[in-house]
This record gives sequence, C-alpha cells and structure tokens, in this order.
Amino acid sequence: MFFDNVSKSTADLRFFTWLVVLAQVFGVLAVVMVAVWMGHFQGGFAWHSDPDHQFNLHPLFMILGMIFLYADGILAYRVFRNDRKVYIKVLHAGIHCVALIFAVVGLVAVFDAHHSEGMPNLYSLHSWLGLFVVVAFGLQWLLGFAAYLTPAVGIAMKQYYMPYHRFWGATLLALAGVTALLGITENAIFKVSPWSGPQGILVNLLGIFITAFVTLVIYLVTKEDYRRPQAPEEDHFSLAG
Amino acid sequence: MFFDNVSKSTADLRFFTWLVVLAQVFGVLAVVMVAVWMGHFQGGFAWHSDPDHQFNLHPLFMILGMIFLYADGILAYRVFRNDRKVYIKVLHAGIHCVALIFAVVGLVAVFDAHHSEGMPNLYSLHSWLGLFVVVAFGLQWLLGFAAYLTPAVGIAMKQYYMPYHRFWGATLLALAGVTALLGITENAIFKVSPWSGPQGILVNLLGIFITAFVTLVIYLVTKEDYRRPQAPEEDHFSLAG
Repeated sequence: MFFDNVSKSTADLRFFTWLVVLAQVFGVLAVVMVAVWMGHFQGGFAWHSDPDHQFNLHPLFMILGMIFLYADGILAYRVFRNDRKVYIKVLHAGIHCVALIFAVVGLVAVFDAHHSEGMPNLYSLHSWLGLFVVVAFGLQWLLGFAAYLTPAVGIAMKQYYMPYHRFWGATLLALAGVTALLGITENAIFKVSPWSGPQGILVNLLGIFITAFVTLVIYLVTKEDYRRPQAPEEDHFSLAG
Repeated sequence: MFFDNVSKSTADLRFFTWLVVLAQVFGVLAVVMVAVWMGHFQGGFAWHSDPDHQFNLHPLFMILGMIFLYADGILAYRVFRNDRKVYIKVLHAGIHCVALIFAVVGLVAVFDAHHSEGMPNLYSLHSWLGLFVVVAFGLQWLLGFAAYLTPAVGIAMKQYYMPYHRFWGATLLALAGVTALLGITENAIFKVSPWSGPQGILVNLLGIFITAFVTLVIYLVTKEDYRRPQAPEEDHFSLAG
C-alpha cells in the first residue's frame, strides 16, 4: 500500500513478468560475476589444504545462498501465482533451507581459511553485520516453519506474526546485500590492484548488480498490485491453505 | 499494507512514539560517533590548506545530510501528524534542501582533499554507488518540488508519480546507508589499525547505528498503521492540501 497508487483498486500486473525476468538477469549476472572473479582472477577454488583458494568459496557460496536463493525464495510467492498455496509454502521453506546450507558452507570456508592462515576473525563491520544476518535468517526460518508448516501455533499467533515475518524477510535480504557489498569492498582493497583496472571494474559491477537485484526483488514483493491473488477457499494461515 | 496485519482495519499507534524516540537516539548516536571518530581519532577538521583533515569533513557532512537529515525529512510526515499538510510539505522539502547542501559540502571536501594529495577519484564501489545516490536524490527533490509545490503538474500526474516518489525516497535512503557503510569500511582499512582496537569498535558501532537508524525509519514510514491521518478537507495533491 505504501508504495502504491492511492487511486487504484484492482490488481494491475503490467510490467510484472518483465520485471521478474529483469531481476533474474541481474541475479544470474551477479552469480556469474562472483564465479569469474574468484574462479578466474583470484585463482579458483579448493578446500582445506589450500587456504587461499578455500577462501574463494566464501563469496561464491554466500552470494548463491544469502542473495540469489534467499531472494528467489521470497519471489516464489509472486511468481507461482496460480498454484495451491501449500506447495508454494513448501517451496519457499525448501529454497531457504538450501540457502542456509550454502551459507553454512560459505562460513566454514572463511573460518577454516582464516584459521589455516592464522588470521583473526570477526573484527570487521562486514563480519559483525554478516553474522547477525545469517543468525537472524536462521531464526526467522525456524519461526516461519513452526508458525506456518506445523500445527504448533494457533491462528491468532500466525496472523500476528505474519507482518513481522514479511518485514524481517525483506529487511534481512537488504542487509544480506549490504553485507555482500562490504565484503566485496574489503576484498577489493586487499586483493585487487589497481582497483581501477579490469578486475576492479568487474568487482564494482558485481556490487551494482547485487544492489539492482535486491532492490528489484524487494520492489516486486512489496508492491500491492503484484500480491498473490487469494482464492476463495484459501486460508492464509492453515497448513493446507 | 505489505508489512501489515491483514486482520487490522483501524490505525493502531501503539509503540509509535517510542520507536520515533529510539530512531532519534540511533541517529544522534551515529552523528556523534562519526564526529568523535573524525574529530578525535582522526585528528579533527580543516579546509583546503590541510587535505588530510579536510577529508575528515566528508564522512561528517555526508552522514549529517544524506542519512540523518534525509531520514528525518521523510519521518516529518509521520511525526507532525496533526498539522496542515502544506506546512509539512514545505518542511519536508526544506530539510531535504539542507541535506543536499550538506552533501555538496561533503563531496567538495573529498574531491578537493584527493586533488590536493594527488589521489585518484571514483574508482571504488563506494564512489560509484554514492554518486548515483546523490544525483538521484537531487533529481527526486526537483521532481518532487515540481510535482507537489508548484502548479506546473496536473492532478493525474501528481497521483501517478506519488508511489514512485515514495519507493525511491525509501530506496535511496537505504542505498545512502549502504554507501556510508562502504565508506566506513574503506576508511577503517586504510586508517584504523588494528581494526580490533577501540577505534575499530567505535567504527563498527557507527555502522551498526546507521543500519539500525535507517531500518527503523523505513519501518516507521512504510507501516500502514502509522500513516498520517487524512483530514476530510485535505487533498493529497493540491498545493494547499
């Protein structure tokens, strides 16, 4: 409602599909760019025996999980407009479960690489914000699962929690984007020289595409006109709804 | 609406005043912290003759203008709930005009300091995103002024533009926060050693308070229940409304 035209009353889906496609282009470009940055410019990927290349898995897995899958897991509610809601709930929870697993792999990669190289952890703003986002995302997943995919919680509580689930879902996605840009900046300063060269331009474009992807997905899921139509027999808050 | 409880129909102002006060505490703490960081830890402020200390004006003026005044200029619509709308429009445009002047001072400070020291400009992600945000904020100010404070534009166009003015207003505030955190990270790496010391902790807390301030202000202005009540004689889109 906040971002919507006050004079409108019926849903208006103009541009919806175009904007979803554009968002996917931004998201896929961001994933490709971080893969090229780490895989080509920073020498590729490895695990424990090679800490420098193990670190390279951190940006790749965090962007795959906490940006791309996280955002598309929210967008599923808008894209699958005409299917039964219970399938989309399971899809939403499933995509975010994979996102969380990818985030854990990304975190293990960076802690293990730092440990192997004797480098300190958790001193930067990137690390403080990032740890908050991953932990809060995990908590939100557990709360969402308990509230909407188990019979543990009553209707009144399901209804009460929904606006907070939505607000924190969008907010943590935005903060995941912020955390990615902070990590990109740290890595650019430590490992890209000169920043004005080809690798530096790739790095800045990666940041721009992450920003554009997250902004566009939040636009798509907050715009009232693009909300999922509710079938008469559907109940937002029942298990089968 | 997106973040609101589906079962609610009347405005519910619970917590509104507490959250506004909390937002102001976060915002003032961010301003105080950047002033202490630059004024105390980084040696204070100067103009052209002393480039290193001229640079220190950049973070201070950008956070004052593009974070604190920008956010409070939006929040004015929620805080002054019971006054005539035309006064709030002028206040909104006035605060954002001062914000823009502060941003220009902050930009002149950094370009002039870089020029004096022979340092390159506009290579970092911080600079790309920041330039976009300031230019887009200036354009949005001009469009808003033309649409809502001059008789140049018809009612239909005023209504059409409103949801975009709102969306971009909130989005550019979020991106101004992102830009601030990127700048803080760059400056921490270049000038704070060790990052894990007292100055580094101050720097991270500055980033956290900026994040909390921007998030809370966006929550307050997007929550449907906290919208300004519209008096019967008020017209959203007339000059006097």
